[in-house]
Amino acid sequence: MSHFDDDTRVVPIEPGLDGPGGAASFSGQVQPAWNIGANPNGGYLLALAAQALRQRTPIHPDALSITVHYLRPGLSGQPCCIDTQLLRSGRTLSTVRATLVQDGSARLELLAAMGDLGDPDAAPPLLTMLRPDMPPPEACPTRSAPAQGVELPILQRLDVRLHPDDAVPGAAGRARLRGWIRFTDGRAPDALACLLMADAFPPAVFGMLGMVGWVPTIELTVHVRRRPVPGWLLGRFESHDLSDGRMVEDGALWDAAGHLVVQSRQLALVRRG
Amino acid sequence: MSHFDDDTRVVPIEPGLDGPGGAASFSGQVQPAWNIGANPNGGYLLALAAQALRQRTPIHPDALSITVHYLRPGLSGQPCCIDTQLLRSGRTLSTVRATLVQDGSARLELLAAMGDLGDPDAAPPLLTMLRPDMPPPEACPTRSAPAQGVELPILQRLDVRLHPDDAVPGAAGRARLRGWIRFTDGRAPDALACLLMADAFPPAVFGMLGMVGWVPTIELTVHVRRRPVPGWLLGRFESHDLSDGRMVEDGALWDAAGHLVVQSRQLALVRRG
Repeated sequence: MSHFDDDTRVVPIEPGLDGPGGAASFSGQVQPAWNIGANPNGGYLLALAAQALRQRTPIHPDALSITVHYLRPGLSGQPCCIDTQLLRSGRTLSTVRATLVQDGSARLELLAAMGDLGDPDAAPPLLTMLRPDMPPPEACPTRSAPAQGVELPILQRLDVRLHPDDAVPGAAGRARLRGWIRFTDGRAPDALACLLMADAFPPAVFGMLGMVGWVPTIELTVHVRRRPVPGWLLGRFESHDLSDGRMVEDGALWDAAGHLVVQSRQLALVRRG
Repeated sequence: MSHFDDDTRVVPIEPGLDGPGGAASFSGQVQPAWNIGANPNGGYLLALAAQALRQRTPIHPDALSITVHYLRPGLSGQPCCIDTQLLRSGRTLSTVRATLVQDGSARLELLAAMGDLGDPDAAPPLLTMLRPDMPPPEACPTRSAPAQGVELPILQRLDVRLHPDDAVPGAAGRARLRGWIRFTDGRAPDALACLLMADAFPPAVFGMLGMVGWVPTIELTVHVRRRPVPGWLLGRFESHDLSDGRMVEDGALWDAAGHLVVQSRQLALVRRG
């Protein structure tokens, strides 16, 4: 086991399993180790909720497409309940929705198409996005908490290295962020970890605007495209669309073999600090 | 009124409005005029369901982010019921989910962040995507149904012109499609029509593979970024990621003033015909 597996463990709440309308509920615990400041990281909450989806649809363990809306901040260090509903179960896909609830209030609402990504050594893609050039992790500065500002407990769980050109907020002059990411405890990445790692880098807009005050995600959709091989993931996050205080940010993750493993897109608010 | 307004009209089913858990149901009719072959176009079904969301959240009429999963094909010419549930209502955003049901089966599942796009003459965007160069509509061939194959009743409702380089399936050698779109009856585009028009062009993959048999959408997410001005919309759709029979296609729409009004992304199956 690893910190990530321990901290996303959920168990079915009896007798909810296979309840009316395909409903089933799971319980878990939002661990403070994945915090950004006082709040749980959104990617961690997504992965925690997705653990319930995986258990709900065991023959379709991988999130081919998962959309999450962040309704309210998660409550660090407190239990959660994840209510799931199976909407359709087919041969190759299961569609499922879920609500993550803490302290009686819905925090996350999810909608996902679950499937089986199968063998990562299968036929090569007909189209793919090439992994961008990047200095090796050893040549990239480690992400650190700003001298003044929020603490980043999550950096004890995740080793995040930023491209030297992107590491100083505001210096890149564009809304782009590239970096390496892996678990600090050596756990290999998998399709579930991809959900966390798709939302564990600083906002790309920091590269253009500097440390804006707050970039809360409204909605995030992650398409997991392939199971990653062990090793570092390389992430690239960019925004080309920031208007009226709302930004669309595109992300992609490649594995250590150079394969595209994730595409992601989020709508976020950009609050000038 | 216009064909689009007529054909997406929904009415609340009493006494569902403000039912338990924020539930409310609406009824409508899936009109055959928007068919691709025997099946309703996915963008049309999305707009029809979004009419119910708009009525559910009247102070937040615009879909800032809307995700739809296509569970089963819609039934052309038959009534539908749209069950909505308000998940959270805030000052600037309402989050709502909905299920479109026909003949007792869920066809579409939706999750949306609704808001108010406000005045299109407001401050210019901090980042935006420039409208691509494109010959004028008069210089672009009209989309037509293939000589052999499915009929396209929807082309009596929508005037679709394709970039000359993209108009012959398989000829472009890449998965890109650019074109103009407007209603045939002169109705101006608006934020709701953007949902239809984000999914009313041929699949971009036709440009690379020719007329593949079938490209059913699993999931589509549309971000409406700005209310369009009257006139043609310009669409660009591209895929850079086709693997194991599944494709991620990115779309964008610009209005007649050159403003980016929509970004969209879908996960679709690519079935060789």
